[in-house]
Amino acid sequence: MNFAIEPATGGVTAPHGFRSASLHCGIKAKPGALDLAVLASDHVGTAAGLFTTNLAKAAPILVSQRHLEKSGGRARAVSVNSGCANACTGEDGLANAVRMATETAQVLGCAPEEVLVASTGVIGVGLKMDRVVPGITGAASALARDKGDEMARAIMTTDPFPKDHAVVVTTPRGMFRVGGTAKGSGMIEPNMATMLGFLTTDAGVPRALLQRALQESARRTFNAITVDGECSTNDCVFALASGANGVTVDEDLYPALEAAFYEVSKALAIGIVRGGEGATKLITISVTRARTPADAMQVAKTIANSPLVKTAVHGADPNWGRIVAAAGRSGVLFDVDRATVHVGGILLFEEGLPHDDAAPEAATHLKNSEVRIDVNLGTSGEEAATVWTCDLSAEYVRINGEYRT
Amino acid sequence: MNFAIEPATGGVTAPHGFRSASLHCGIKAKPGALDLAVLASDHVGTAAGLFTTNLAKAAPILVSQRHLEKSGGRARAVSVNSGCANACTGEDGLANAVRMATETAQVLGCAPEEVLVASTGVIGVGLKMDRVVPGITGAASALARDKGDEMARAIMTTDPFPKDHAVVVTTPRGMFRVGGTAKGSGMIEPNMATMLGFLTTDAGVPRALLQRALQESARRTFNAITVDGECSTNDCVFALASGANGVTVDEDLYPALEAAFYEVSKALAIGIVRGGEGATKLITISVTRARTPADAMQVAKTIANSPLVKTAVHGADPNWGRIVAAAGRSGVLFDVDRATVHVGGILLFEEGLPHDDAAPEAATHLKNSEVRIDVNLGTSGEEAATVWTCDLSAEYVRINGEYRT
Repeated sequence: MNFAIEPATGGVTAPHGFRSASLHCGIKAKPGALDLAVLASDHVGTAAGLFTTNLAKAAPILVSQRHLEKSGGRARAVSVNSGCANACTGEDGLANAVRMATETAQVLGCAPEEVLVASTGVIGVGLKMDRVVPGITGAASALARDKGDEMARAIMTTDPFPKDHAVVVTTPRGMFRVGGTAKGSGMIEPNMATMLGFLTTDAGVPRALLQRALQESARRTFNAITVDGECSTNDCVFALASGANGVTVDEDLYPALEAAFYEVSKALAIGIVRGGEGATKLITISVTRARTPADAMQVAKTIANSPLVKTAVHGADPNWGRIVAAAGRSGVLFDVDRATVHVGGILLFEEGLPHDDAAPEAATHLKNSEVRIDVNLGTSGEEAATVWTCDLSAEYVRINGEYRT
Repeated sequence: MNFAIEPATGGVTAPHGFRSASLHCGIKAKPGALDLAVLASDHVGTAAGLFTTNLAKAAPILVSQRHLEKSGGRARAVSVNSGCANACTGEDGLANAVRMATETAQVLGCAPEEVLVASTGVIGVGLKMDRVVPGITGAASALARDKGDEMARAIMTTDPFPKDHAVVVTTPRGMFRVGGTAKGSGMIEPNMATMLGFLTTDAGVPRALLQRALQESARRTFNAITVDGECSTNDCVFALASGANGVTVDEDLYPALEAAFYEVSKALAIGIVRGGEGATKLITISVTRARTPADAMQVAKTIANSPLVKTAVHGADPNWGRIVAAAGRSGVLFDVDRATVHVGGILLFEEGLPHDDAAPEAATHLKNSEVRIDVNLGTSGEEAATVWTCDLSAEYVRINGEYRT
């Protein structure tokens, strides 16, 4: 089926049937700083989620997993706070995460398991429920159609800018919208890079297709970015489908949904990398001619997480040797003599030997704020993967090494 | 069998039957800077080697692997240069590495395959053989008993200090010595952290026991340190046994040999970490109550390579959350609620909850130049591992991000 995808405005509330409200309830110390958001569908729709693989799972992760299971993949709303991760908070933390859902459900008149919750911020500290509860009540009572941009700001911690995106999908069976917002790798005092993502669509999507579209698009976007290789206690991405515009996604329409999820997720994921701590450059790393997609991803991620590659890019050093060495220690088998390395489209390594005469041109490319590294592994395979990351700067060390206690 | 191990002086030439010479042949630009060393046994003895697992193996690695195989694990000498890694140098590079061995063999009157070679320095640049050949001839003709300390300096690149160590082992069957030197994680312009290590002993050691002692001791020392998780094209460790003192190691004496190799290797490995780029602190990470030794090592290494943990230690931030999160994403299964985290012996995390009242005391500990992190995984297993690493400082970024072209 043919389809067209075009950018739209409105972020997470661009799709019909969604409203949101954000406010300052008092978790963040800064007066007026948005720290709580409720996103709700006008009616209960389908929902899907992806959760951190870290063994140390925060309370909101455990509660949202349970709710998605109990509701059979249906949800009415998401309540999210920033400034406190509600992680490593024991039984009290679990009770607080449950209460975020029950309070939201009470205002909206739905079942508690039809509410998903998420938190980001300091870990090991309890949620101030005397602020969160009135916050949820206030936000859930003030939902509006045009406040998607406020939610993008309410979920920020040290993110330097808000991230949202939306698209309109036109198909022979009608049009639908996909919107989203995410927060990224800003480290929060005192703690860790949490990624939260929220996608919405006004198509009607059966649960299984919604989960598949979320998983497939996240694999190539949210799971293909890395700032420092860390994985948090609170990472999660949710997708909610309102079905408000009457188009129902089936196997025929599915490719359009996945493509739209990919477009929105990619924009958000790249925004997260651009806003990475201390980041001054966006690095796009593509690995081609791998035997399997997993091989390609593994090589790309090893290069992306190499402190030596990241510092070289930071210093605009066309250091093909560090790229070759990172690929070589990735655990993926290939013949180094058949591999090539391009930086900014300039061939720097081929047949086991450097092209040092091309280094000055590559160095000029590396002074840009967007740089490309392409590695062809030269196997008989045809698989490829692309990963986005940022450079490693002294600023990263400063942000993460500052004394907190 | 009882044995005692005591420190000795003399480094790599402490064991009898070994002589060495080091000189400036002209690879390094700085006048007089030692850049070439020959270490020789008075007679051909047994030899063992460990080599980088990186697919991009430098020419000297390939040549030394082949020589060890061809000689049946026997060697007379090692020739090593610093300032040029002879990596990514194609067929010419291989020929040059072979020639380093043949020139050494010619002066010493042994077979070329009885000479091992190693290089460290800039990659992608050819060895200046018009300087290396006279250098090898000169060094191999000037071998002396008391020049172990010079070899420790000749293999340095940006290492801030030379590293050598030696011990005397007393056993009921007689005494023997083990000596060693290593160079570490100083990044060299423009390139990568290469680790070279050389161990000697004047015991007579059958090839299989020598390889086993090298492997077992390296597993808990050279392979238990990490500066930035990188693994170079040139990493290798060699062990040579001269048999000059008449004691022959058999299965009964083997534990004494392994213990001595461990002592020397541990001192060298910790020296490498202390001299890590931009390092201001030595971090000892011990993981206990793991199901398998591999599990323990994997958790310890994940914590050791976590940029968030390394920057927190740099900033003297007792950030147990980053430690728990790193362990949680290590891929090893354990119950976070049963795990504990101590920093400097101070309990910071237990039963899923922080002990924030202890944070100031832990912060004081983290201001030391040597810090300890202990993680008990709380499984029914009894396995443990210790890893040494250093903190991540802005200086690391400066050293590795400087523009080279």
